[in-house]
Amino acid sequence: MPELRKDPVTGRWVIISTSRAKRPSDFVRETVRPKGVRSCPFCPGNEAKTPPEVLAYRREGGPNQPGWTLRVVPNKFPALRVEGDLNRQGEGLYDKMSGVGAHEVIIETPEHMQTLADVPEKAIEDVFWAFRDRILDLRKDRRLRYIILFKNHGEAAGASLEHTHSQLIALPVVPKRVQEEITGARRYYDFKERCIYCDIVHSEAQTGTRVVLETDHFVAVAPYAPRFPFETWIIPRPHLSHFEETAAPAMHNLAWVVRALLRKIDRVLECPPYNAVIHTSPIQEGALPHYHWHIEVIPKLTKVAGFEWGTGFYINPTPPEEAAKFLRDAGLA
Amino acid sequence: MPELRKDPVTGRWVIISTSRAKRPSDFVRETVRPKGVRSCPFCPGNEAKTPPEVLAYRREGGPNQPGWTLRVVPNKFPALRVEGDLNRQGEGLYDKMSGVGAHEVIIETPEHMQTLADVPEKAIEDVFWAFRDRILDLRKDRRLRYIILFKNHGEAAGASLEHTHSQLIALPVVPKRVQEEITGARRYYDFKERCIYCDIVHSEAQTGTRVVLETDHFVAVAPYAPRFPFETWIIPRPHLSHFEETAAPAMHNLAWVVRALLRKIDRVLECPPYNAVIHTSPIQEGALPHYHWHIEVIPKLTKVAGFEWGTGFYINPTPPEEAAKFLRDAGLA
Repeated sequence: MPELRKDPVTGRWVIISTSRAKRPSDFVRETVRPKGVRSCPFCPGNEAKTPPEVLAYRREGGPNQPGWTLRVVPNKFPALRVEGDLNRQGEGLYDKMSGVGAHEVIIETPEHMQTLADVPEKAIEDVFWAFRDRILDLRKDRRLRYIILFKNHGEAAGASLEHTHSQLIALPVVPKRVQEEITGARRYYDFKERCIYCDIVHSEAQTGTRVVLETDHFVAVAPYAPRFPFETWIIPRPHLSHFEETAAPAMHNLAWVVRALLRKIDRVLECPPYNAVIHTSPIQEGALPHYHWHIEVIPKLTKVAGFEWGTGFYINPTPPEEAAKFLRDAGLA
Repeated sequence: MPELRKDPVTGRWVIISTSRAKRPSDFVRETVRPKGVRSCPFCPGNEAKTPPEVLAYRREGGPNQPGWTLRVVPNKFPALRVEGDLNRQGEGLYDKMSGVGAHEVIIETPEHMQTLADVPEKAIEDVFWAFRDRILDLRKDRRLRYIILFKNHGEAAGASLEHTHSQLIALPVVPKRVQEEITGARRYYDFKERCIYCDIVHSEAQTGTRVVLETDHFVAVAPYAPRFPFETWIIPRPHLSHFEETAAPAMHNLAWVVRALLRKIDRVLECPPYNAVIHTSPIQEGALPHYHWHIEVIPKLTKVAGFEWGTGFYINPTPPEEAAKFLRDAGLA
């Protein structure tokens, strides 16, 4: 019998469709392996092909020269621009404002032929430090309210360049889904006087059936009501509303957790395309007792159809307990 | 300068990214043309390959025999089942219920080689009558709260069989996005004492820049804050909350409007994959003064990336005024 499950934070119902339960091998998909290209703008030596860097970690060389291990540059075709006023205004019945914000690319390694799952733990840790550095810098601009950090891996997941990279978008508004998640968590907090993500961490660690891996600092779980097959969340154990407040030992451990999870996903699903997004609190807000930052990783295995767009209602053919077991049992190699 | 625009119903902000404005020819995509297959379960003569029909319009022959012009059958791999109790229950911190509901397929024509844009107006009108007939039947089941009617056209849009068809999913809950749309419209109504969609119809017809086509009964417009390039909504002119209450003259006209819009889309975007969804009111509710049924058509031209999933925030490279102009200027041939 199929089951309807409710996401406890957002209230979203999903169908876990046991009658068409799908194992990893049932999904047809792109296998993402870098092919190599001659003139990649993200490769060392091609620094002039991107706008000047806003941040780099380097072993040697000057700004916009080779020798870097990680590089952050403005997007060449930015969706938003830093200059100008917000200029909120009406347009008949409608509302608009200028597209003020930032759109940056984090080039995660100089190595074109490596994916984020391939690079050393230290390189992954540096990606997270770079995220933090950029947030601390951008939040000084009081017009900016929210920063989205995300990674599209593989063409089917929306990556237009194969050299491994993440993106940052700083917005003058808090996006609707983010606000909804925070509001949902707030409702639970008002009722229970506890953070719902803290409760999820406890409950999942105790049950164990949806746990993919655990460390002292993090739990990686298949959520109870996942929208997509093999959707996995990495949740910090101690309560923390803002990603950028993560302390060094946890940041170090996060690199291990992300590497382990990506390698498990590559193993079980044969290097699938995926999207990963950091869910965190609005940058101008102080610590929130009710919201808890986390990472959502979504392998791109199915096509999202009209049904989902129209309704925000998802049919997931893989129960999270089965997905978690596949990932839990997989090695890291 | 890019622009941030707010959808007046849901409050969702989108970026209209003028700096990377895209014309129809800039999108790489699948062209959807039926190829023909030997043993299509939706073709006449293969009636035994589907579950027995729940509705058919036919010129001749008995149930589950050839001679039909339109046929509605349960989905062979249904996401939900009609049998059983809802059985709402807790599971630790979570909530679930049985997957009670219905999942049906509307086979729109016996002709395998025709798309919905190719068939005669009468056949399109019959699809809408079939939707209505199924709603009137299913709403007698008081466990069911909402019916989603949608069409996935082309593989990239999620269609797994190419023989043209739509789907119906009847749910024991009102999906979150639907509820959100109704709540947003309700908020406007409480403030203005007018239906927001009625205001949109008036305002768009007056401005004209986002109108694709107009008849006495309907307006087809590119919405002010579209999530996707060439997203188009068909909105009935007179206020009506429930699709199934549409009267015969409007239903007849709707077939013309849908055919015209699909042919324009095929012309401008070279037969793209698309999703279409009917947005309507919950089936057990009486007439609502604040909600207004409509159809949303979304050509599948871009890949949705992690950014959109994580935040519900969309970057649209084609301003709706440009999209509307392309569609408005296109012929119907």
